[in-house]
Formats: sequence, structure tokens, C-alpha cells
Amino acid sequence: MLVVHHPDQALHDPELVFRTGKFIAQPDRAERYRIFLDIVREDGHQIVQAPLGNLDPILEIHDRDYVEFLKTVYKRWTENPDYGPNVIPNVHPTHRMHRKPTELLGELGWYSNSTSCPMTEGTWPAVYASAQAAIHGADRLSSSSGPVYALCRPPGHHAYPDLMTGVCFLNNAAIAAHRLTKQYGKVALVDIDVHHGNGTQFIFYERADVLFCSIHIDPRVSAPYYAGHADEIGEGAGRGLNFNQPLPWATPDSVWLNAIDAALAKVLEFSAGAVVVSLGFDASEHDPVATFKITNDGFAQAGRKFSALDLPTLLVQEGGYLSPHLGGYLRSFLRAVETSQPAFS
Amino acid sequence: MLVVHHPDQALHDPELVFRTGKFIAQPDRAERYRIFLDIVREDGHQIVQAPLGNLDPILEIHDRDYVEFLKTVYKRWTENPDYGPNVIPNVHPTHRMHRKPTELLGELGWYSNSTSCPMTEGTWPAVYASAQAAIHGADRLSSSSGPVYALCRPPGHHAYPDLMTGVCFLNNAAIAAHRLTKQYGKVALVDIDVHHGNGTQFIFYERADVLFCSIHIDPRVSAPYYAGHADEIGEGAGRGLNFNQPLPWATPDSVWLNAIDAALAKVLEFSAGAVVVSLGFDASEHDPVATFKITNDGFAQAGRKFSALDLPTLLVQEGGYLSPHLGGYLRSFLRAVETSQPAFS
Repeated sequence: MLVVHHPDQALHDPELVFRTGKFIAQPDRAERYRIFLDIVREDGHQIVQAPLGNLDPILEIHDRDYVEFLKTVYKRWTENPDYGPNVIPNVHPTHRMHRKPTELLGELGWYSNSTSCPMTEGTWPAVYASAQAAIHGADRLSSSSGPVYALCRPPGHHAYPDLMTGVCFLNNAAIAAHRLTKQYGKVALVDIDVHHGNGTQFIFYERADVLFCSIHIDPRVSAPYYAGHADEIGEGAGRGLNFNQPLPWATPDSVWLNAIDAALAKVLEFSAGAVVVSLGFDASEHDPVATFKITNDGFAQAGRKFSALDLPTLLVQEGGYLSPHLGGYLRSFLRAVETSQPAFS
Repeated sequence: MLVVHHPDQALHDPELVFRTGKFIAQPDRAERYRIFLDIVREDGHQIVQAPLGNLDPILEIHDRDYVEFLKTVYKRWTENPDYGPNVIPNVHPTHRMHRKPTELLGELGWYSNSTSCPMTEGTWPAVYASAQAAIHGADRLSSSSGPVYALCRPPGHHAYPDLMTGVCFLNNAAIAAHRLTKQYGKVALVDIDVHHGNGTQFIFYERADVLFCSIHIDPRVSAPYYAGHADEIGEGAGRGLNFNQPLPWATPDSVWLNAIDAALAKVLEFSAGAVVVSLGFDASEHDPVATFKITNDGFAQAGRKFSALDLPTLLVQEGGYLSPHLGGYLRSFLRAVETSQPAFS
């Protein structure tokens, strides 16, 4: 399988995140990138380094002012010698707070909704490289003899056009899916990360050319909390093209795989020309986020289901956090996708 | 002058607040309450302890679910032994995030927009007592021979009906102003705290019976950041009854006092039956928030201006933080109000 990545993705690596009233270990460490890269090397996949391209494909999804902010905020932050080592917001707008301020803390709050995205000097190059991996993966799909895996990290599916949240800054999968619509017409984006892909949902909520399906922990009881309900079905031209399947704590393989079947039935009904998978492994029974109970075999079965669609498929890495099993999940999923997928060329 | 307070107000006293990427000293310490109380004692004011009343007057401004949350959140927080010592949110809703979750962190984010309101076991009794001081102050106004000072702390003017922010939980001044409309018909609320009274603005934005005037640091460059512009003039029945005067860094007495004159001209034009003053001293040249350059004499002149209105006046304490000058500002303001105000009975 073709695997796309860029080493700059490891440049973002804050150790701590502010959560539950204190600093705790950051789940999205650069170690995740290295684990995934080791696995695809060991398994003999064809590995290419993404060219660093330009901002244009990113700016088709994200607001220019937000992207400019991400590029420059760390330098602005360091001009305040009494601030903490990483960029972390402490205030955000809400009801009837409609104006973007110019001062750093206010602007930082404007572009974020949580403390979950600490930024360092290496954050911008890392998130830019992660997006470029998704973009190059999309660009290579039509000439590939099978699915393409974009080894994206930091992940992206929580990011809105102008909002960083949930360890996400740029919405890699959305950028790629939008890019694929130009070649394939209709694109289905299926998100199996254990958290709702709220940024992706927002981006495509009124679009007729992208079907979004998400299978995730019920947002009433887990992040991202405020979106991801089953009755969020899209609006306008996108009505009926947003398909959320929130599931309870401790969801096992059988229920999760049935939900994937339901999503893939929607994909076929939609007559998608290509599929993007927001591929998280944090639904696993061993993941530190501790939500679902998906086994290694569950991920393999999921891989076979995507393969059986027989459509051009771009896999975009999302979450899945450090445990001794993390690399094994990627191995099982990729082997299942590759072994069982017929050539679609 | 009649002064109303309650000792429970000192029960809320977190030492630290998470801001600029780290924990820093919390500005709203219980010491503020003690400093103000010492001053009014030394100056021989008539001091009464507010009865603790009931929730009804609070629920005329604040949502019942929010108040219930404030009452119970600390206990819920302590059921998680791995959480930090104080209740601090780390995620908040924003665009198209319309549903309140049930899980603690999600619900906490729903009712807040910043990390500025750390909560302890004593927070609810303290904010409740602070609100009751404002309520009792309002209730005593008509039988008082002059203005009444509600020694409120924690302050309130940033609090929305369902939102804690900016060290504020319950909007003491708004609760009191609303209560006074029942007796006086039209009430003017003039906010001279250095920060925009965004919660108060929101509460009365569409009401015809309360004029809101605020003089504050330009929200483009300082908290509360996302509201407080001059073109926010009210809506519907409240159109024209919201009067913001944002001013630049380092505003001196002369400019600030002219702004107060402009606000008081609006109060007279409105034919208010009573006035509530959101009384902050954080505009001072010595305040740690370091925004305006108001002197002790500036506060005394402001006091004389309010006195000259010759209207029933309830002073509600808002901000103004620890410096050797803090108590002196209150002394100067109260002496000026009391000395120059004619009896209005």
C-alpha cells in the first residue's frame, strides 16, 4: 500500500495538556507518528514523503485569517516573557460575543474552544506537514493500485474552518475529501475515530457532494460533547448526508461493526466515487481514552468491510493513543484492507 | 451610608487561576472583602449583614439549571479523585455546538467560557451570599436616607444568565437592578468597572426598563474581549438603551470623567427612577490589571457626579484588585457620594 507522511509531523510534541483542573500527559505525542511509521516500514509498504506544497488546498477548507494565526501565534506568545512555555488559551467567546479582538489572548480564544491544543514552536510546521500528507495522499489515489494511507499526525477531524480543538488544528481528512470531489464527484467520508468528527461535520454540513458518516461515543458523555447526535442530519443541500451513530460506553466489536455496515450501506446508496476514512484506533479496548472495547480482530474486520466497498479509498490517520497495542491495530487494519480489496482500476 | 454584606462571601478564595498558559495569582481574593469591610467600619458607616433569603430573586435573572449546576458542581468534581483541587473547565461549546451534555467536564464547559472562575467548596455559599447582599441592598434603598453600598464579592457583572466568566458567577448588579424596576419603574445601571459589563449588557439588551451604560477598556485589547463595542446599542425594546464607551489603554481621569458625564446625561434623559452603579476600582493607576490611570481624586470626582444625580442609588461592588490603595478608593468614593448627595426622600 502507498503510505504518505512527512517527518516534520514530529515537530509538534508538547508533553502536557491542561485538563480536569491540572496538567496531565498529552495524548497526541510525536511517538504516535514514529510507531505508525515503524509499522508500515516493517510491513514493507511503499512509503513516500509528501512534498510540502503550498497553502492553497488548505485554504479551500480553512479561513485565511485562522491559518495566518496558526502560523504566527507562537512567535507572538513568546514576546510575553511571563507567559507559560506553550500557547494555551484561557477564554473563549460564547453567546452574543461576535467580535474578534486584536490582543493575543482574545484572538487565541477566538480560534479555539478548549485547552486541548497546546502549541509550541514546532506546531505549525507539524500541522502543515500533516495536512500535506493528506493532500498528497489524495493526489496519488487515482494512480494507485489500491488504497492509500496518509499517516497524518497531528490528527484533524475536530478542526473547524476557523477553530482548533481536540488536539486538531487543520482538518486533514476534510481537506483531502474536498480535493477528491474535484476528481471523483461525490465523496464519502467515514469517521471511525471514537470521538465525533465535529469539525468535519461542520465543514460539509450543507454540501451535497460529501456524505459524512461518523461512529462515535455518545457526545452527551464524552468529548467533543456539544455535537454528534443522531438527529444532526445535515442542512440545505446537505440534508440527509450527515449520518451520526453515537454509541454507548464499552461498545463491543459486534455493535461497532454493525454501525460500520450501516455507514457503508449509506456510502453505496450515495454512489460515492471515492471514500475517505478518518481512521482512529482510540475505540480500542486498550486505548487510554477508555471508551469502546474494540479488539484487534475488530479493526481487521472493519478493514475488510472498507475493502469490500471496492472504491478508491484514502485512509487518513486520526486518533488512537499510546499503548503497547497501537501499532498492531494499524498493522491489522492495513493488512485487511490490502489483502481483501480487489483492484478497482 | 448603609452598607450590606455577608461573611460567607469570604468562603470563596482560590489562590490561583489558570491564565496565559500557567497558574498565576487569582485577582479576586477574599482579602478584598476584608479590606472593603475594614474601610466601611473605620468610616463609621451603618453596616448590616444581609439575610440569606432564597433563590427567587436570583432565578429572575439566572437560569435554574445553571444555578443548580453552581450549587452542585464542586461535589460532583470531587467524585473524580484524579481531578485537580479546584473546578476549572477545559472545553467550551462554540459554532454549531448546541446541545448540553450530561458529563461533568462537558457541562462545566457549557456554563463557562474561560478558566477564570476556579471553584472550591466555598464558592457557592460565597456567590450566593454576594448576590443576597445586592438583593438586600436593593430592598433597603427606598427606606434609606441616602445611597446604599452592597459590598459584593465575588463580583458579578460578567456573569450571563447561564454563564460564569471573568471571576463572576451571579450577576449581583443585574439581579438588584431588575428587582428595583418593580419599585422604581425605570432603572439605570452605570458600570464603571474597567472591564465591560458583558453579562449585564446581555441580560438587559432587549429590555426597555433598564438603561445600561458601561465605561471600559476597549474590548479589542482586553478582557472580556468579545463584546463592549460602541455600536452595541441594544435590540428590540432595548434599542438605544445600551451605551458603551470603550476607552484606550492608560485613559486618564479627565477622559474617564467626561465619559461618566456622558453616561449620566443618558441616565437623566432616560428619566430613571433609580440608579445602580457597578462600582469597580480596577480603572485605578495602581490596580494590578494596569489598564486606566484613574487617581484617588478621580474616584472622588466620580462619586460626586453620581451624587449630583439626586436619585436613589445602589452601589454594587465589582472589581478592583489588591494594592495598598484599594481601600482608599472605596473610602474616597463613598465619602464623595455621601457628602454631596442631597436627601432624595
